[in-house]
Amino acid sequence: MRKLYLAGAGNVSKNLLSLISNLNSDIKIMGIENSRGQLFSEESLSMADINNFMKSPEDYRKSLNISKMDFDIYVDMRTASKNGERERDDYINLMKNGKHIVTANKSGLANFFPEIGKASSEFDKKLYFEATVAGGLPVFSLIRSSFPSFTVDSFTGVVNLTSNFVMKKVNDGMNLEEAKRKAMEEGVAETDMTDDLDGTDSARKAVIIANSLFHKPMRLKDLKYSGIDENNIKKNEMLLAKISMNKEFSVESRVFTLNSEDPFLRLAPMGMACSIGFKERNPVYISEDMDGPLETAGAVLSDILSV
Amino acid sequence: MRKLYLAGAGNVSKNLLSLISNLNSDIKIMGIENSRGQLFSEESLSMADINNFMKSPEDYRKSLNISKMDFDIYVDMRTASKNGERERDDYINLMKNGKHIVTANKSGLANFFPEIGKASSEFDKKLYFEATVAGGLPVFSLIRSSFPSFTVDSFTGVVNLTSNFVMKKVNDGMNLEEAKRKAMEEGVAETDMTDDLDGTDSARKAVIIANSLFHKPMRLKDLKYSGIDENNIKKNEMLLAKISMNKEFSVESRVFTLNSEDPFLRLAPMGMACSIGFKERNPVYISEDMDGPLETAGAVLSDILSV
Repeated sequence: MRKLYLAGAGNVSKNLLSLISNLNSDIKIMGIENSRGQLFSEESLSMADINNFMKSPEDYRKSLNISKMDFDIYVDMRTASKNGERERDDYINLMKNGKHIVTANKSGLANFFPEIGKASSEFDKKLYFEATVAGGLPVFSLIRSSFPSFTVDSFTGVVNLTSNFVMKKVNDGMNLEEAKRKAMEEGVAETDMTDDLDGTDSARKAVIIANSLFHKPMRLKDLKYSGIDENNIKKNEMLLAKISMNKEFSVESRVFTLNSEDPFLRLAPMGMACSIGFKERNPVYISEDMDGPLETAGAVLSDILSV
Repeated sequence: MRKLYLAGAGNVSKNLLSLISNLNSDIKIMGIENSRGQLFSEESLSMADINNFMKSPEDYRKSLNISKMDFDIYVDMRTASKNGERERDDYINLMKNGKHIVTANKSGLANFFPEIGKASSEFDKKLYFEATVAGGLPVFSLIRSSFPSFTVDSFTGVVNLTSNFVMKKVNDGMNLEEAKRKAMEEGVAETDMTDDLDGTDSARKAVIIANSLFHKPMRLKDLKYSGIDENNIKKNEMLLAKISMNKEFSVESRVFTLNSEDPFLRLAPMGMACSIGFKERNPVYISEDMDGPLETAGAVLSDILSV
């Protein structure tokens, strides 16, 4: 039996609930919370309970200490905090109290991966985060399941939708403001796309990859990164996260000028892609033309089922 | 503990042994055989034992009944039989005797998937075959681990190296005989490439996909397929296996003319690729520029570790 506590009740959470209800599995939802309220039951929640909570979460008062509640997996689908401290404290406390962590929220890991990873080893609890780097495009589960005997030695990824969408539209002839508006209209970007365009989002993902696939303890503050130069977008440019271990270890997250034959340049405007290189075998390329909350929820569910 | 019996002692087997010896795992090799000899030990074999066997397998006489030996997983890396009857009989007998099957040999599954799949359910034994369709490019492990909650509704794959290599070289200006010679020189093709060029190899893979991902019981003899038209190779053509469930179920394995923007056309001459569509979510594309016995051995090992 997998007893879940869902933190966050937005689009990813709603899609996850719908996937779970269509799946024949041993999953039970014990609790759910968002910023306004919290619902928990020792007996597990029905979909009707959850729907009532979703309608008016403020009717359900927040309890104090979730780490003492009876569940196995804490599923973090909350809005990221700015500095990741809340996530760090929550995860460490939860793992100490016997809970596994599955997260789609990258803030804690980007800022405190070394501390959180250490707690995962120390308390022997799983820490899965498929959805933090490329939404619903598999990276960690792919490596874990399909390449267990190989060592990753390079990763190059188109991991930020908004900036690459904006760059592509500008290269296709739109002006910058139109391209940004289009990104919002298409649901690619939030109203505030600062973190996307200044490169912070891609950098967070690079840091998570460096820690997890390359075992290099580092934090967002250790990385010099840059975003797109809004008034000087050029052809064949893309914002990429690039980590490699060929001879020396290096992590970059910035705009690269690509060879015109590079498959990344042929990616759809709302696509995600990455190329994963290995010490022993030939590299693998994986992409999708479109990513959204359903795809991300699928990644969260694959993590839950791997615990 | 995973106790293996390795059937076949060629390149894939050698690469698998090297991967296993570099991996910290619970795997033990109990036995190994090829067409000339067989070695088994109740205590598990050392790498020295195996190397001695590899040098002169004829010094190790074949025993009669492997199904009574003490191991958990039968790993089939033998040369495929023409009609798959030997593989069918072996797998069913082994599963009946409590063994799981991991195979890189597609002959049994292409011809008798319904019978073999039935035995796997009936005796509750695993049947994994990652390496049978796209060598070392993940298909089944990817779907199993990364997309457990989604339903596959289309598969299009470049799954035969030789024919696509030959077509590409002819399109690049080589004549047919040069292209075939080049395929042999580069290690892409065997001396006898009839099954590749007449489409049988790709068709076998289409049948395995139809049975496993689409749950449609069928056999190679049920499929009308074709290969490449050697004297009339055209631009933008590729030999593909294409299975879909949009409205009606269909399986095709033949040469298709692709849109010049299709990513399959940009694949390296020795590459494998596939696009997997789902009922619920956006499709995923995965490719590699080169595949060989090491990649295939990696796929076999990922199956072994999934048992």
